[in-house]
Amino acid sequence: MSLLLNDRFLKACLGEAVDQTPLWLMRQAGRYLPEYNATRARAGSFLGLAKNPAYATEVTLQPLDRYPLDAAILFSDILTIPDAMGLGLKFTAGEGPSFENPLRTEEAVKKLHVADMGQLQYVFDAVTEIRKALIQDGKQRVPLIGFSGSPWTLACYMIDGSGSDDFRHAKTMMFTRPDLLQHILDINIESVASYLTEQVKAGAQALMIFDTWGGLLPDGWYQRMSLAAMQKVIALLPREYEGQKIPVIMFTKGGAIWLNDMAQVGADVIALDWTMSLSRARKQLLEINKPLSLQGNLDPLILFSEPKQIAKAASAILEDLAQAPALKAGLHPLDGHIFNLGHGISQFTPPDSVSALAESVINSSRALRLKQ
Amino acid sequence: MSLLLNDRFLKACLGEAVDQTPLWLMRQAGRYLPEYNATRARAGSFLGLAKNPAYATEVTLQPLDRYPLDAAILFSDILTIPDAMGLGLKFTAGEGPSFENPLRTEEAVKKLHVADMGQLQYVFDAVTEIRKALIQDGKQRVPLIGFSGSPWTLACYMIDGSGSDDFRHAKTMMFTRPDLLQHILDINIESVASYLTEQVKAGAQALMIFDTWGGLLPDGWYQRMSLAAMQKVIALLPREYEGQKIPVIMFTKGGAIWLNDMAQVGADVIALDWTMSLSRARKQLLEINKPLSLQGNLDPLILFSEPKQIAKAASAILEDLAQAPALKAGLHPLDGHIFNLGHGISQFTPPDSVSALAESVINSSRALRLKQ
Repeated sequence: MSLLLNDRFLKACLGEAVDQTPLWLMRQAGRYLPEYNATRARAGSFLGLAKNPAYATEVTLQPLDRYPLDAAILFSDILTIPDAMGLGLKFTAGEGPSFENPLRTEEAVKKLHVADMGQLQYVFDAVTEIRKALIQDGKQRVPLIGFSGSPWTLACYMIDGSGSDDFRHAKTMMFTRPDLLQHILDINIESVASYLTEQVKAGAQALMIFDTWGGLLPDGWYQRMSLAAMQKVIALLPREYEGQKIPVIMFTKGGAIWLNDMAQVGADVIALDWTMSLSRARKQLLEINKPLSLQGNLDPLILFSEPKQIAKAASAILEDLAQAPALKAGLHPLDGHIFNLGHGISQFTPPDSVSALAESVINSSRALRLKQ
Repeated sequence: MSLLLNDRFLKACLGEAVDQTPLWLMRQAGRYLPEYNATRARAGSFLGLAKNPAYATEVTLQPLDRYPLDAAILFSDILTIPDAMGLGLKFTAGEGPSFENPLRTEEAVKKLHVADMGQLQYVFDAVTEIRKALIQDGKQRVPLIGFSGSPWTLACYMIDGSGSDDFRHAKTMMFTRPDLLQHILDINIESVASYLTEQVKAGAQALMIFDTWGGLLPDGWYQRMSLAAMQKVIALLPREYEGQKIPVIMFTKGGAIWLNDMAQVGADVIALDWTMSLSRARKQLLEINKPLSLQGNLDPLILFSEPKQIAKAASAILEDLAQAPALKAGLHPLDGHIFNLGHGISQFTPPDSVSALAESVINSSRALRLKQ
């Protein structure tokens, strides 16, 4: 175990005081960075990149070398699990990921099996290699986040076979054959839990569950299908490993309306998109006596603005939260918050925008902390 | 003025008691109906259909002949206004609508002018013709709803130039040049208000504003940009015409999180997508002393289920609302609700599904009303 040089992110996840608000960005290692595109060109393809631990390590560290970020996140794809189930993942230029064998029949669903963790060894190897690469002068620069798609979000791709506006096939299966969907979800729950547990054993120090498509569900169905499945995953995860707490961040895009339900399933941090203010979320969580940390929630398209406008928008988020009650006695209202976007960074983002954002988060969050 | 045979829809909009819950469907005249496709084939193209009052009348009435629906809605497109502004609307097979001259430069924005209502005469002619066609034995079968896109939603298409996942160009203009966006919104406010007013003069008996893309906005920006613009439109509308109240329905897809804000801007009815239960919405509105009617909110993909499942899902929505407090003393909890989908009906919907839905709404809403 090396000493962690910067533990702001882990402290904020666990609701402990920090000197400044930690920042990381969803998809921080990605196509908006020229150095990422250079590595990807060498790897030959997206899957060539994601399945090679050396390349995955290289791109995971790239944003950390450029920006003062407070966490690294494993470079990978949420579709590695269905790929390991034999659904035949492929990436087509311009069209994104798709599966050769989507689950469109009862027969196909019944044949589905829990992902073989042996086939995902490249992911765990990447985690271990990234942890090593994060060491500088005997100390670890920032913690490493592992992640997975949620059981429902994986099911969306597994059933529809590719990205979609409405995941019509997945939702139709849910409405017409909830038993078949539940069968898939049960397999995904076990797969996701094993996958995240192996990431922890390999060196992940926090975990994030991406429920990208939970927001497509009707009220009631979200709770029964996506949220209940995430709850089962979380119950199976190691909450401590080698004496360190392993915080879990849960993100349902478009899910702010269900914040109070999300707070009940065992996550340490709720990540929000930009549709709900952090002060409102903080107040709601305190009202139901669930003092969880929050992550978010800048609209990534703000990063297409001028540096001054980016700084203003980032400060506005912090100033709003600074007006809310603190998570617990003794904390500043800004504690228990990890700054992030409300969705992945766009591939068209000018890289300098992220510098402006980081500078603003550091300066504003320090200044606001001094005020009170 | 002919007597209205079925006034359930108007009564529900205005929060008056009815014998059964009125039902209509967003995009009820559309591609899921073979008779619609036949008319469209005769018209030659979507625009040929939408711009011809005789065809528009024909397709508007088709769903009423098939199903026991409680309202007709003008068959048209939300992009008629920017088309009349000279942006060059075209429909490409498989790709949907786009504009030849999107507003991408300050120069283009500054040249924009309020839509010439003369160029939209075909819409008002269609409204008048539909009103006439709705007369049967001297009485009007059901009321006719007029509609428009919201100023922000129109701006999304006008700036991006076509449909989009994130309307990156429109949002970037908002973040970087809010003055330019406001200029467009101001022009759209005036255009939408005139357009809806002319529809009322031509015979529309209720109005709906579709804010399809308001849900893409960050908290704060939604209120300042989309909602404020709708408020200005509503303030300019005739709330009575020839002695009849003209109710206004406001729909922001993905906007349930802002329900309390939406309730403040003068609409009579708030339409909801499927992410918030109607009982929760009813309770929230009563808490803030805004007893507005609600419209919604079945997920249109439910219509891909078996008739029994459709009936169960429709009943579940009604049973949920029946448990909530009534809008006012003397009303049943189900009063002040118009049954609808939470989004437009899918083109792939089996037509018989709508029969199953209508039957269930009628039977359940009558049975539940008798219970209390």
